[in-house]
Amino acid sequence: MIDEKGILFILSGPSGVGKGTVRKALFEQDTNLKYSISMTTRAMREGEQEGVDYFYRTREQFEQMIDEKKMLEYAEYVGNYYGTPKQYVEDTIEKGHDVFLEIEVQGALQVKENFPQGVFIFLIPPSLEELKNRIIDRGTETEDLIMNRLKEARNEIEMMDKYDYVVVNDNINEAVRKVRAIVQSEHCKRERVAKQYKALLEVDEK
Amino acid sequence: MIDEKGILFILSGPSGVGKGTVRKALFEQDTNLKYSISMTTRAMREGEQEGVDYFYRTREQFEQMIDEKKMLEYAEYVGNYYGTPKQYVEDTIEKGHDVFLEIEVQGALQVKENFPQGVFIFLIPPSLEELKNRIIDRGTETEDLIMNRLKEARNEIEMMDKYDYVVVNDNINEAVRKVRAIVQSEHCKRERVAKQYKALLEVDEK
Repeated sequence: MIDEKGILFILSGPSGVGKGTVRKALFEQDTNLKYSISMTTRAMREGEQEGVDYFYRTREQFEQMIDEKKMLEYAEYVGNYYGTPKQYVEDTIEKGHDVFLEIEVQGALQVKENFPQGVFIFLIPPSLEELKNRIIDRGTETEDLIMNRLKEARNEIEMMDKYDYVVVNDNINEAVRKVRAIVQSEHCKRERVAKQYKALLEVDEK
Repeated sequence: MIDEKGILFILSGPSGVGKGTVRKALFEQDTNLKYSISMTTRAMREGEQEGVDYFYRTREQFEQMIDEKKMLEYAEYVGNYYGTPKQYVEDTIEKGHDVFLEIEVQGALQVKENFPQGVFIFLIPPSLEELKNRIIDRGTETEDLIMNRLKEARNEIEMMDKYDYVVVNDNINEAVRKVRAIVQSEHCKRERVAKQYKALLEVDEK
């Protein structure tokens, strides 16, 4: 009944907090969200697939996209680019579908500048100790990288103030349930529906 | 882990829209919410109970409460007073529990003035035609009253701008699901959790 635009949701948070796991679980439960797959120059990890986890590109290819202003955001993180192609997000929202981005903190802050009407969700670990354990458990990082990531995580958590929502990832099911609640409640925000609804009342009067 | 205050949620909307039905279904599903029972001077309807649906009082008793400033809000609606005793709401929130108020529009606007940090949810019918049918189906009103209520409903819907959320009650389960999503997402609002979480990071550092 209501010709509403889609909403861009951004899930971000420090490396190792479990953004990817939450995003995957969310998409298993909720088929209305469109996932915007990020582009990256980092190496493919075991179990990952091109066009599923990321679009994997060389630095040269990625920098060409930047030059052509085809990225909604991009960031360099631990020596690699991560970014979001712009066109897909804009088209999908225009058609009335929600888009869901799972990105690093630097990228999220760029989206905040370029697309402030997005809804920004910050995923945080129950504690920094827990975050360290998770990064170690992943087993893909050297000790130096782990310390770097923790330091970066602390800085990133300071940026919490730029976000609309904070979800503590102490339990994946619980975190997914909260993200879904945020998606649903954002569609009930008065400023999104009031105009359309008042137009509906005008029609009723005739 | 987080010593957070409760939140006051206010569900309001035009008479006949189904506020009571949504509230009852919500409380069957969600036992964490504390319901603040309203006080009224209107006659008890069939099936209603003192202290369950309302506290039923005489006009004299109610006006004494007003004089003693013991009401968070009150309104006169179709010749009767409706209101919310203040103490219970304040105590419950202080203890960290959410309070849920289901009240008429005039009362909700008073709460908005007295307690702007509340979360205001406006329940609307899919159309005015549908609202008319629902009031007629209830079978408790004369034709004059029905027309008065519809006129009042239109005026009340104009007050939508004062609310944080708008939920269309085209399906009770769907409406309850949306209200629950709003409750959950409000607890994830960054401004509610950021301060506590930053304090937690300080502790980690030691």
